[in-house]
Amino acid sequence: MSIIAFDLGGTKLSHAVFSCKGEIVIEDSAFLPPEKGKEVGSFIERTARHLIEQLTPTDPVTGIGICVPGIYRSQEKTVWAPNIPGWDNYPLWDQISQIDPNIETQIDSDRACCILGEVWKGNAQGCTDAIFMTVGTGIGAGILSGGQIIRGASDIAGAIGWMALEPPFKDEYIQCGCYEQTASGEGVAKTARKFLRVAAGTNSLLHQIDSGNIRAQHVFDAYKKGDPIATAVISKLIQYWGMASANLVSIFNPQKIIFGGGVFGPASQLIDEIYTEASLWAQPLSIKEVVFEKSGLDGKAGIYGAAALVRKGRNRDS
Amino acid sequence: MSIIAFDLGGTKLSHAVFSCKGEIVIEDSAFLPPEKGKEVGSFIERTARHLIEQLTPTDPVTGIGICVPGIYRSQEKTVWAPNIPGWDNYPLWDQISQIDPNIETQIDSDRACCILGEVWKGNAQGCTDAIFMTVGTGIGAGILSGGQIIRGASDIAGAIGWMALEPPFKDEYIQCGCYEQTASGEGVAKTARKFLRVAAGTNSLLHQIDSGNIRAQHVFDAYKKGDPIATAVISKLIQYWGMASANLVSIFNPQKIIFGGGVFGPASQLIDEIYTEASLWAQPLSIKEVVFEKSGLDGKAGIYGAAALVRKGRNRDS
Repeated sequence: MSIIAFDLGGTKLSHAVFSCKGEIVIEDSAFLPPEKGKEVGSFIERTARHLIEQLTPTDPVTGIGICVPGIYRSQEKTVWAPNIPGWDNYPLWDQISQIDPNIETQIDSDRACCILGEVWKGNAQGCTDAIFMTVGTGIGAGILSGGQIIRGASDIAGAIGWMALEPPFKDEYIQCGCYEQTASGEGVAKTARKFLRVAAGTNSLLHQIDSGNIRAQHVFDAYKKGDPIATAVISKLIQYWGMASANLVSIFNPQKIIFGGGVFGPASQLIDEIYTEASLWAQPLSIKEVVFEKSGLDGKAGIYGAAALVRKGRNRDS
Repeated sequence: MSIIAFDLGGTKLSHAVFSCKGEIVIEDSAFLPPEKGKEVGSFIERTARHLIEQLTPTDPVTGIGICVPGIYRSQEKTVWAPNIPGWDNYPLWDQISQIDPNIETQIDSDRACCILGEVWKGNAQGCTDAIFMTVGTGIGAGILSGGQIIRGASDIAGAIGWMALEPPFKDEYIQCGCYEQTASGEGVAKTARKFLRVAAGTNSLLHQIDSGNIRAQHVFDAYKKGDPIATAVISKLIQYWGMASANLVSIFNPQKIIFGGGVFGPASQLIDEIYTEASLWAQPLSIKEVVFEKSGLDGKAGIYGAAALVRKGRNRDS
């Protein structure tokens, strides 16, 4: 008895086969077909059929869980994935569930899967109230409250990249929200460019890089060397990450906030400072009860969560 | 068959008797005894016993629901109410449930009761995802998400008065949080005093009032007359109320946000402007789906919610 889990990204598909003991026995990944759209659905289906065929003699597949990069519309059973052209309302559940009616198919957003993965096998084990804050290309949150995933009226909950953290409103927030504009992976680079423009005369390693080419990693590298502009950028980011975390603490009174995504990563070294900033702002009892930690699953929270969907259902934590 | 509902405030106790059809057949309120502490518990108990005795011959009481101003610790079944001296961990459930083992006793926070009241009889009827934002002496939120009340790991969820909305952190936020400091009832007055100090030379009706005596109502009255300082204060408040609402919209993707408490009230006329401000900041799909409205229960959301606790249980919305 085994479970197939998929983690669909904007450019590649990872898969893993979990044994009945919850251990990964096969894992691999492949780039998505260049045609995108329907081809991506067919690629997932083909991979699933191949694995089912391979496993049936020894370890028959009981379920398929899929983590998708966007929104899973649970009523319509369709997927909206902004980075996969043609996936505005893609009927992924229909396509995968028709492979074999005896195999359960479960799909959920990357936000939901990441926190479910951490609750199952990562740093939120035993929690009924925990939040996974992904800081990568964008920013989002998977939120477990009272043992239930927060989905919202139309499955768009957890869009914390849109958090309002600093008035007045600026036009640059229109595209992706105030918090994400400043503090996502791309936001780190944007903030660095802004600080470099303002402090054009300051001696900084970042001035050696062509402004358009600055990436988050350059900022972290320069910060490690004590660069003054990088240090100022990181201070601003700690403030934003701290304020946003504080808001989640005051609103949800969680046991854990788990930081993941490409930026945490290098920003994991800052989690204590983020907690210190959050302590200034948050509800004073709730902040004392919560633990801030990095992901315990090293980039695999989504795929563990996809398997957890099948093991535990989309709504249950235990 | 009838239900007794209590709404406990910092200074008075309101009660209502609901018929089996969900209509209020008796209602009254009384000031709390000056001794506070245990005397308040005994006062509630005495009132309950009196009503039970009065109702038993014609309409026997099946349940008692109580809305408390603070935190209801659901595991310990005790109440923390900051405005009632001695209620750090008050065993209210034990005291009331021992009156008659056949009468169900339910207790919850004012935040939870207000949204449950709106879902039952007010402006959130039919909603599975709705938020009651109370703006009175303090600021808090009762949050229903996916048909469940958000409670948090230790029943402190919804403490949105602590929302971080404007860096950097100021010492004045220590007492009650950034959002509440500026935008609660007391916050309206504090913000007005601050604006008056900065604009000491500006002609304003508010300069006629001794600074320490300025209340929210003075600001709304002066705003109605086009006073420039009051207008500036109200603009700042619309920004804060809009940003905080936007954050709840992006995080929860709710169907409704309901504004209540003493300030809404006079601020109800501003709800359209608050929605306009929130539209700038919030997740663009979620903000289009949500409706902002004032409470439909005219200050009685808490007592309706207390009755709903008994009718529907603390966790169910339907």
